[in-house]
Amino acid sequence: MVRPGGRSARVQESVHTAVRELLAEQGREGLTVPQVAHRAGVTPSTIYRRWGDLEQLLSDVAVERLRPETPPEDRGSLAADLESWAEQFLDEMSSTAGRAYIRDALLGDPDGSNAGQCSAYAAEQLDVVLARASVRGEPTPGVERAVDEIVAPLMYRILFRPDGLDAAYARRLAHRALAAAEEPPA
Amino acid sequence: MVRPGGRSARVQESVHTAVRELLAEQGREGLTVPQVAHRAGVTPSTIYRRWGDLEQLLSDVAVERLRPETPPEDRGSLAADLESWAEQFLDEMSSTAGRAYIRDALLGDPDGSNAGQCSAYAAEQLDVVLARASVRGEPTPGVERAVDEIVAPLMYRILFRPDGLDAAYARRLAHRALAAAEEPPA
Repeated sequence: MVRPGGRSARVQESVHTAVRELLAEQGREGLTVPQVAHRAGVTPSTIYRRWGDLEQLLSDVAVERLRPETPPEDRGSLAADLESWAEQFLDEMSSTAGRAYIRDALLGDPDGSNAGQCSAYAAEQLDVVLARASVRGEPTPGVERAVDEIVAPLMYRILFRPDGLDAAYARRLAHRALAAAEEPPA
Repeated sequence: MVRPGGRSARVQESVHTAVRELLAEQGREGLTVPQVAHRAGVTPSTIYRRWGDLEQLLSDVAVERLRPETPPEDRGSLAADLESWAEQFLDEMSSTAGRAYIRDALLGDPDGSNAGQCSAYAAEQLDVVLARASVRGEPTPGVERAVDEIVAPLMYRILFRPDGLDAAYARRLAHRALAAAEEPPA
């Protein structure tokens, strides 16, 4: 039960900041809830009450870090926008920090809501790209098809099958999503 | 360092069996290394030495459980084989047990080798399906393309975006892999 209003938001901000600082200073190894509480100036029981355990707190912090900060770049065509988005998504998610955040997000997520939020961020970004293309009059695939063709292979390979993950592969995926735009709707 | 030969294999078998039994009896909650060791008739230090910690042991057991037991069914055409394989893969992986094993496999896997093994199992099964189709003279996509079109969306959605995951979706993915067989190689 999170109380609405200012105090709750301040607690979240200070606890998230404490986690990010401690991760940067010492990494995950040996990180504890009492340590985070001390740095954030709250009691450990505040953290346990709100987040359950360290894994769930790390998952929330990870999702926050995976939130895109800016809308996808507009490069003037769907092909260029998808290529550039796929390359950037791969860069961010396959970095050491990105992999650690994806892992954390999945780990402390008993109901799947944090994983769902990560996926929603990617779908929202693709939606912006596809909506712009529609305005230009370009044919576009649906957003779920773009998720299947671009996001799913990148995330699957980052987690399970990392060989051959490079910018050229990301661009090939973008072109498969483009090709799907020309198909009759299923 | 695992010593080759009979004792090592016997220890692995008895420890894996102990984990499977305890998971079936009581679930993950409260499972400990000393408990597994006691059931398996080995010392806790044997387990720590060989597996590092409980997460890595659970990951090894999960991968073992995710190993396909039979080659994919031969239904006489690539379309039928891919449809049936995709439906069955979705069934198994999205079951409660399947989700728990995927999660365990990813979790206690510091070097990614267990996740890689899961992916290798899927790729090997697809390879059998594709090789059969080649023998029949049917055009086939490469195995990596089939992984992208079928395995990646299913696993991505199981982990991150579970809405709308059903047999009809699995069959649509199979048909995308089929359509890719007709494309000129990239």
